[in-house]
Amino acid sequence: MYKLSIDAMSGDLGSSIVVEACEKFMQSHQDVELYVTGKAEELEKLQSNERIHIVDARDIVPMDAGIMSVRRKKDSSMVKAVTLANDGIVDGVVSCGSTGAFYTSAMLFLKRIEGVEKSCLMAVLPTYNQKGVALLDVGANAENTPEQLHDFAIMGHIYAKNIRGIASPKVALLNIGTENKKGDEVHQKAYQLLESENKIDFIGNIEGRDILKGDCDVIVTDGFSGNIALKTCEGAASILMKMIKESMMSSLSGKIGALFAKSSLYALKDQFDYKSVGGALMIGFEKAVVKAHGASDAKAFANAMDLAYQMVKLDVVTQMKEGLSEK
Amino acid sequence: MYKLSIDAMSGDLGSSIVVEACEKFMQSHQDVELYVTGKAEELEKLQSNERIHIVDARDIVPMDAGIMSVRRKKDSSMVKAVTLANDGIVDGVVSCGSTGAFYTSAMLFLKRIEGVEKSCLMAVLPTYNQKGVALLDVGANAENTPEQLHDFAIMGHIYAKNIRGIASPKVALLNIGTENKKGDEVHQKAYQLLESENKIDFIGNIEGRDILKGDCDVIVTDGFSGNIALKTCEGAASILMKMIKESMMSSLSGKIGALFAKSSLYALKDQFDYKSVGGALMIGFEKAVVKAHGASDAKAFANAMDLAYQMVKLDVVTQMKEGLSEK
Repeated sequence: MYKLSIDAMSGDLGSSIVVEACEKFMQSHQDVELYVTGKAEELEKLQSNERIHIVDARDIVPMDAGIMSVRRKKDSSMVKAVTLANDGIVDGVVSCGSTGAFYTSAMLFLKRIEGVEKSCLMAVLPTYNQKGVALLDVGANAENTPEQLHDFAIMGHIYAKNIRGIASPKVALLNIGTENKKGDEVHQKAYQLLESENKIDFIGNIEGRDILKGDCDVIVTDGFSGNIALKTCEGAASILMKMIKESMMSSLSGKIGALFAKSSLYALKDQFDYKSVGGALMIGFEKAVVKAHGASDAKAFANAMDLAYQMVKLDVVTQMKEGLSEK
Repeated sequence: MYKLSIDAMSGDLGSSIVVEACEKFMQSHQDVELYVTGKAEELEKLQSNERIHIVDARDIVPMDAGIMSVRRKKDSSMVKAVTLANDGIVDGVVSCGSTGAFYTSAMLFLKRIEGVEKSCLMAVLPTYNQKGVALLDVGANAENTPEQLHDFAIMGHIYAKNIRGIASPKVALLNIGTENKKGDEVHQKAYQLLESENKIDFIGNIEGRDILKGDCDVIVTDGFSGNIALKTCEGAASILMKMIKESMMSSLSGKIGALFAKSSLYALKDQFDYKSVGGALMIGFEKAVVKAHGASDAKAFANAMDLAYQMVKLDVVTQMKEGLSEK
């Protein structure tokens, strides 16, 4: 049995979508036990399933919680879910609380993989060639050393190989030019480390304009520029979609066009819909940590649960440990 | 008479578009004298205009020229145009050579404003609210100090006030969160400097996802993350447009829709067309330095010339000097 803890309370939409997701997930996954943390009276529907354990937690970590606040919330559904992982009762944990609060909980209450100086946040972006690309770190750290970027590359490689099933994932370094001498000292040094790392297929620097093309599978970046790249992608995509809609709606022929093109445009919107991606991964911890989007619906939350399940089933954390120890 | 030097040779499309742009520009600008650098035999059409001086230059700086190569190209159209500015013969210089080579030429052959530690590159991006936003530095520097970001803020403010005619431009700092303690040490310190700078209307941190909204007029950023933000915007916009087109073309109703929506979509494409923006500015030098896009057509090149003309006419460099000296 693979064991996951599920924080049922921290999302924008309350516990009901988590309950729905758990029910759905358990039907398709017969080899899983869940530990669901939250107010027991809101989780009653799950009690009848003998593979689901309700862990009563009276408190909720608010979306904007800082480090001091999280530290105090030991009776919260989020901290309890993380603690279950740290205590070895489960091997993976899922929450749709805020990224900041959930990451802080993991930092405070969960061990890191030995030898990993910094854990980080990974997001998978949709790409032009439909393959998707994993970007890490997207903002857990405000700055990183070349050695930390080296760790991220190895962990990203192992993720892409196991979870995405790519035999030899292409790994690139986000930089301000493609030549090997580009960037500040950190990125120049990181380039050297990645180039001499035999375990990964390092294809060199990549610029911001090529992130969404899909020519590589993993993009390594420091938390500062990774965060800016991720949010700039999100912002540009959302504003462009809005402008296209308004631009079409401003003329009669545009309106007619929109009517006919509707299904094509919706298909594209779905592709850029972060809900279908399955959530961000917090990488570098001893357990699988998956963050579902705060506004997750049941389907999105179940996708995040499935990602945690895959991570546990394929024992990705152990492989990351091995990969890092051979460094 | 306002005087500009024009590098006629360094663009992808050769001297003919520059000649065309000069002819067009001079018709609408009666108070300008031009010094056009390049192979005299290619510039014959301009000789009849008595406000145009042909400066013969036999060499061309290639698009991929590095610092050593630029240093050697003293007889090139680009270096000659820059030198005319440094010698005080003109007050502004325009080229459509590569950003890297042109910036290197300015660094090597043009004085910086006294007290400015680092010059930088500014781009104006189209925004949702149609106002546009100036982003600086977008990649001249691989890293910057808080004091340098402070300089960029003042210079960006003066640009927006004079060239864009915004009485009190809103200035923001690109960061990985909106709270004042966000980011690495450089950005935390920069936040403090900007907050206590009375001359500018500092509205705080801005995240990547809000760049294109247009809520502020100037975004200050270090060259590394600014370059990534700019190129990520460009890349996301171009890939999304491509995907929309292909998505529509993949079904009959989509094709019909595209037919009707064509003019709306073209209007939007124009708005995101960097040609109409008028080129990037190199900021922090004693003279106005404007880079037209490498693939500029005559219209785009004339727009870049007009930007240099405005910079000179409104004496923006002197105002930047004053703004920086009062710091």
